[in-house]
Amino acid sequence: MLKLYTAPTPNGKKPLILLEELSLDYSIHRVDLGKGEQFLPDYVALNPNSKIPTLVDGETEITVFESGAILLYLAEKTGQYLPETPQAKYQVIEWLMFQMASVGPMFGQLGHFLNGASEPVPYAMRRYEQEVQRLCRVLDGQFQTKEFIAGAYSIADMAIFPWVAAYDYLDLPLEDYPHLLRWFETLQKRGAVQQALALLS
Amino acid sequence: MLKLYTAPTPNGKKPLILLEELSLDYSIHRVDLGKGEQFLPDYVALNPNSKIPTLVDGETEITVFESGAILLYLAEKTGQYLPETPQAKYQVIEWLMFQMASVGPMFGQLGHFLNGASEPVPYAMRRYEQEVQRLCRVLDGQFQTKEFIAGAYSIADMAIFPWVAAYDYLDLPLEDYPHLLRWFETLQKRGAVQQALALLS
Repeated sequence: MLKLYTAPTPNGKKPLILLEELSLDYSIHRVDLGKGEQFLPDYVALNPNSKIPTLVDGETEITVFESGAILLYLAEKTGQYLPETPQAKYQVIEWLMFQMASVGPMFGQLGHFLNGASEPVPYAMRRYEQEVQRLCRVLDGQFQTKEFIAGAYSIADMAIFPWVAAYDYLDLPLEDYPHLLRWFETLQKRGAVQQALALLS
Repeated sequence: MLKLYTAPTPNGKKPLILLEELSLDYSIHRVDLGKGEQFLPDYVALNPNSKIPTLVDGETEITVFESGAILLYLAEKTGQYLPETPQAKYQVIEWLMFQMASVGPMFGQLGHFLNGASEPVPYAMRRYEQEVQRLCRVLDGQFQTKEFIAGAYSIADMAIFPWVAAYDYLDLPLEDYPHLLRWFETLQKRGAVQQALALLS
């Protein structure tokens, strides 16, 4: 049995989408970030970085933290949503890394300065708005010629989707990026994606 | 023959450390970020995100961008610095992801607000100082019981090292983190690490 420690944030939704796509048997343990449950010793023993999500695989007794690592782990375990041939596999992994290193952190900083900062910080707002726009142009360019980010539907799409789905929170005019919007609407229609979002709403 | 497009930044140094550890036959193509060479069409064709590093493997004709993806690619290609058993392998991958998603972006933001911002931004400076200190405590805690970040020396250590090596640029008092400092000094003594840093100095 798989146990996912998670919360309703973009990073928390990524592995849920994959678990739903795979129709695996799993349970959800919600971590209440507002109450600081991520800092409790039992949780820190699983995830020394005090972040969500964390996956515990009861079958193998393997614990994996970091959403990107969990996606890779489940894709390798099941042989799905990550191609086997090195060329196609590394196209997925490079876009997964792009999500982990750029889309997540930079969209996250913009979200903070738009919605979470205790005072207006115009310089930082401009900085992260511009970087998020640049990243959306990179994604839009990729979706101009590819149906999914690395060709076929993969864990890299599942990693990017929840951050784009936060477009409202991020004041992101998706209509300015027609190819990104087309991809977003395609994913939004998938049953597994809808199911995953409903589970954490 | 392997060709690495890179520049003297922390992300640019990561794959060089691995290439030196592996004693592989490779060439370096320096990308002049100051001149904007990362935006030239020939480079964007290799790396649509206009960042360094990018690896071109002449043997397989595979191109890989994102430093974390390059590290995984070379480790899998050679069977080194990434364990084979799932448990040990995913310990390396989760810490590699931690580096890609937190250490790199957050140390990078602190570097910007300390050294690159066109005006002082006290709120952002405090925000990233505090987050970098938190990340250093996470690393220090891990190194208290582990010789290397995931047990044995791996690509996750090579990913973290160049960012810690920027301690001066980041005003980072490494002596406040004795276990992190011990690990840092161990890596600093490795011939391959010294060779990699000298190549980009």
